[in-house]
This record gives sequence, structure tokens and C-alpha cells, in this order.
Amino acid sequence: MKEIVYIDGAFIDLNEYAVQLEDRGYMFGDGICETVRFYDKKCFALRRHLAQYRRSMKELNIPITDTDVEIVNLFDEMIEKSGADNGLIYLQLTRGTAKREYKFPVPSLPHLNAILRDTPVDEAAQQNGIKAVLVEDIRWLRCDIGSLNLLGNILAYDEARRAFADDAILYRKDTGHITEATGGNFFIVKDGILWTHPADNLILNGVTRSILIDRIAKPLDLTVVQKNFDKEFMMKAEEAFITSTENEIVPVISIGKQKIGDGKMGDVTKKILDAYHALTARGIDTDEEEEEKDKVEGKKTFGM
Amino acid sequence: MKEIVYIDGAFIDLNEYAVQLEDRGYMFGDGICETVRFYDKKCFALRRHLAQYRRSMKELNIPITDTDVEIVNLFDEMIEKSGADNGLIYLQLTRGTAKREYKFPVPSLPHLNAILRDTPVDEAAQQNGIKAVLVEDIRWLRCDIGSLNLLGNILAYDEARRAFADDAILYRKDTGHITEATGGNFFIVKDGILWTHPADNLILNGVTRSILIDRIAKPLDLTVVQKNFDKEFMMKAEEAFITSTENEIVPVISIGKQKIGDGKMGDVTKKILDAYHALTARGIDTDEEEEEKDKVEGKKTFGM
Repeated sequence: MKEIVYIDGAFIDLNEYAVQLEDRGYMFGDGICETVRFYDKKCFALRRHLAQYRRSMKELNIPITDTDVEIVNLFDEMIEKSGADNGLIYLQLTRGTAKREYKFPVPSLPHLNAILRDTPVDEAAQQNGIKAVLVEDIRWLRCDIGSLNLLGNILAYDEARRAFADDAILYRKDTGHITEATGGNFFIVKDGILWTHPADNLILNGVTRSILIDRIAKPLDLTVVQKNFDKEFMMKAEEAFITSTENEIVPVISIGKQKIGDGKMGDVTKKILDAYHALTARGIDTDEEEEEKDKVEGKKTFGM
Repeated sequence: MKEIVYIDGAFIDLNEYAVQLEDRGYMFGDGICETVRFYDKKCFALRRHLAQYRRSMKELNIPITDTDVEIVNLFDEMIEKSGADNGLIYLQLTRGTAKREYKFPVPSLPHLNAILRDTPVDEAAQQNGIKAVLVEDIRWLRCDIGSLNLLGNILAYDEARRAFADDAILYRKDTGHITEATGGNFFIVKDGILWTHPADNLILNGVTRSILIDRIAKPLDLTVVQKNFDKEFMMKAEEAFITSTENEIVPVISIGKQKIGDGKMGDVTKKILDAYHALTARGIDTDEEEEEKDKVEGKKTFGM
């Protein structure tokens, strides 16, 4: 499948030159991004993704020049054009083009782009688990924003690859706290309880993380503790996994030289993965689906 | 004067679309930048700027695909094209275009661009000083790299403007240490001694900062202490100023509600500013000039 690529009102070829040098996204990484997966031609948890997108915009004071309805319609159009049943849409917004200076441009006209690919879930990673290493988290103190300033993530990922691992689990040097993985949230299972970093300024509160906490844990009688923990605590975990839109739930079977649990997907992780697949198969829960329908029909139940 | 704009071997119009969506500079801020001032058609301290540029590349593992001689020749050509005697050249390099994923692309073909403008020094700020406010430094822990991940700087600058100030002086919340300004290094004068943050991972070791330390302080019998200090210490300073390529030496006459010294440019700052102007008027010191000449002529005395 050829990717479907959109920017500022037009569909383009991915190789086209579509951005100006002084786009603030190119000069400063001054923008945000959001990734949405679609299953059976339908975006999953779109309401939550749009809320995350709006939150990131608000935190960076990027003005709104596109409505939720427009984005929903854009995604539908892209999925239709692609002919794909399943895939991933990457959405990005920058503050716009202006003479290079720190000051926010006034007026500001943000640039919106989106890329759809039929990127499959990494099923090998999901079934067999991945090997991780511990890497210092050197990112800025607003990781709660889905921004384009991603060098800290990229460098950590590269450090993991150079250590022959699949991903990095990040820790803050000043506190020793484990924060997240380079492209997803991190959970451990300790004495049957799920632990994950609180949704503060040091992690992106990912949609898969929030779905697990809100919609999956309770029906499975699982308790989730959103508290800081350190390396020593983590290394005693029975299970560990990463949540992300792109690869859903991926078991972490070793960290550095140490196996986690018995070095394969644990029972709790398996239950959560199955429950997540059940959700993606039927769409998200009815309340949210209803609200999304209202939104697409233009009823003012959701933001704008 | 119209700006002179270059990218990947060609001169273009600034409004042209010159960048692809999946340029890693646009997706991740995965690149570096360097700003050089020219006086009387001659780049100032170019050797130091190129060293800084190479260092940033090395720290991000961006491969070298342009030589120093090529960059020197490019700058000369841009200055000639512009017809300007004085101005500013902004140089930027990204890791190249590749399908969006954290993994470094192999092979990698970096994109180099440069923008020349006749941007004058802000003489009003330089003579009258600026008002600053103290803002938390939330940037990542590799501020020594001149990267394109500049949201932390931009947001601090915006916070300063919203507080009706001209710039922000940044401090780290965990230690209380004062680091730098949003676009330059920060110095205070205390008991006649110059204090500035050490050149570690928390600041960009700017060229103007290093010229002040290496070439200006000694002839003026000034001692420079590169040590951490906090807000309380700073507020007792007799003088304070910011160094940057763009605006050279700019006095800070107040921080928050408090005046620094007597609220205008102090004697030490004035001496340093005059010495800096003497340097820019005659070019940098002879040894460095000689080395630059060798380099332009292709002699292998400097890097590549």
C-alpha cells in the first residue's frame, strides 16, 4: 500500500517538498503530534486521541484552526483513499511559518499534516516480548506534551540499539524513578499489582495507558497503582510491559542482563493483551462510541 | 536587503517549499544549528563556530557530508551575493529524510541549509540594558548541544514576554542553579569577579562566552569563575549581562522586581562591551585568523 499524505488542505506525494525552511516545526520542533490506529477501517479511541491532541496544543498555546469534525472527516477520507482495513495515522501540527525568532508569530497560521500507512502491529514483539536496557531519561520536564522535541527519545533508543536491545526503559538520574519507554508507557506487575509512573510532567499519558487503567483493569480485577518506583523495585517485578498505540501491549522479558519473571509473556500481561484485542475488535466502549457519533454529526457534546 | 537562502547545494527563495515532511528535522527536531555574525563582510570567530557545529554533530552522531572549506566558501558566497557589510548567518543541519521511526536512517544523507539576513545588533538593548525575569529551566539535559529541540527556550521566552520582560534568566528547580538566558549565556559581576555557569551539559558553551573568557577577561584583569550560583547570590550582583552571537553583550538591568546594581550598564560590562567591539572591528586574534586563512586555502591545519 502506498501511504496517504495530507498537508494543509491537499493530498500530496510523500516525496514532495511541502514545508518551508522557516516553518517553526523545522526551526524549533515547535509543534505537536499524535498517532492513531485504525482497525476495520475505524479509528480506535479517537475521542481520547483528539483530547490528547487538543491538550498538547493548549499547553504550547498553539491556536485552534481546525475542528474535531474536520479531523475526523480527514481521517475517514484518508482511510477510504488508502483502501486499507488496518493501519496507523500520524498527525502533526506546527505553529506555522514566520521569520525565525523565539517570539510566537502573530497572527499565527498552524500547519497540519497527516501520514497514513498500513503499518502492522509488531506481532513478534507482542508474542515473544522484547529485551530492554535501562537508560537515563535526559528529556525536558514537559514530557506530558506530545511535542516534536524528540531528541531525548531518539538518543535513548539509539543507546538501546547499540546495546543490542530493542528499546530503553528510562529513569531519572536525580530521583532514580523509572518513567517510561522511548515510545510508550511502562508497567510492571509486582505481587499481582500493576505499577506505572503517575501521569505528571515526566511522562506522556498515552491513550493505551489510559484505556488500560479506565477500561481494562477493573473488569479483570486488577489494581493499578500510579506511583513512582525505582530500579531495585522494578527488578523484582514478576512481569513488565510497554503500552503504545502503535504496538498495543508488548511484554518486556529482560532489562539489561536480568530476566523479568521467567523471561516470557506473563499471565497478567496475557490477560491484558487479550482484553485489549477484544476492545480493538469491537471498537471502544459504547458511551465513547455514542459520543463520537454525536461529534461526527456535529452535535456539540465534545469540545468544539 | 532580501535574505540569501541556501539548501542542499542551491540558492532558493525563502518562501519556496524546500523540505519534505519526513525530514527528521521536521518530525523530531533531529538536527543542529549555529549562528555566525559577519562584520565588514568577514565572518567573526568562524573557527570557533565551526568547532561548535562539528561538536554538536558529533554528539548527535550526524555523519559529516560537508567539509569546513565548503562551509567557509558557502558563507563567503552568501555574503558576496547579499552585498551586506554586516549581518547574521543561520546554519542548520538535519539528519536527513527517512520513513518516520526513531532508528537513525542508514544510509543517512543530512540536509544543510543556511539563511543570511542583515539583522543588526539590538543597539538599544545593548546600551540601555534589558529587563529579565527568572523562569524555571525545563529543558533537556543536553543543552550543550546546539540542537533544534528548542521548545524549552521558546516557552521560557514567552513566559518572560507575558511578564512584560525582555528575556528570561533560567534556573534549575532541583538545584536552584542559574543556568543561562533563553538565547545566550549569562554572567554576573560580584565583588568585581565574573561568575558564569560551568560549561557542562546544562548550558550551550556559546562562542561569545568563550571569547570573553579566553580573549577579553585577561587583558582587562578580570577573573572569571565558572561555578554554579543561585538566585540569592545573583540578586546581590553589582552587574549582570547576557552574551550571544546575535547581540554580543547585553546588560541585564533588572531581574523580576529587583534592579541589578544601579539599574543601568555597569563599568565592568561597559569595559567588556568595548573590548568585544574592538575585537569585532579588527577580526579575532592573529593566531586564529592565520588558522582560518590556512583552512580557506585548503591547508590541513584544522579538522578536515
